[in-house]
Amino acid sequence: MLKHNSYFDGGVQSIGFERNGLRATVGVIAAGEYHFGTGAAERMTVTSGLLRVRLTGGDWQNYPAGTVFEIAANSGFDVQAVSGPAAYLCEFLGN
Amino acid sequence: MLKHNSYFDGGVQSIGFERNGLRATVGVIAAGEYHFGTGAAERMTVTSGLLRVRLTGGDWQNYPAGTVFEIAANSGFDVQAVSGPAAYLCEFLGN
Repeated sequence: MLKHNSYFDGGVQSIGFERNGLRATVGVIAAGEYHFGTGAAERMTVTSGLLRVRLTGGDWQNYPAGTVFEIAANSGFDVQAVSGPAAYLCEFLGN
Repeated sequence: MLKHNSYFDGGVQSIGFERNGLRATVGVIAAGEYHFGTGAAERMTVTSGLLRVRLTGGDWQNYPAGTVFEIAANSGFDVQAVSGPAAYLCEFLGN
């Protein structure tokens, strides 16, 4: 079933679901900067707003609505929602 | 800030936010059929899965991920998530 998740005192919230055996979440990131670690690899699709993202060991890059980035398993990323909240779809690529 | 909403005993859940003065939500609809009424007009973008939708007075139509439909103000729609949960972005077009 659906599961509500809240991180960083509610600054990042998501709803988890599973479809055809694959786990995914949709969520919103309030304006600010956050760090997330990954277990499984993840594919993030920005659905509204603008995210700035720095993968572990990389540089900051902009991902506006409609763009996609992936994060390796057992890694992490810093993320900033710019000029207001941004929404995303996160698909988990492994178990 | 972000606001978690739950409808139909948790079968539909969303996270509301506001960006540039426009209200929006991202959410997930569990498999099943639901009815929603509108206040402001809404633009729904399906971001994962498949929704079947019947606008008030209309016929059932399929909206797979990547497609968009709009609902008039002070109207409503029936919606089915087909073969598992579906995710959406809902943008409110008026106040």
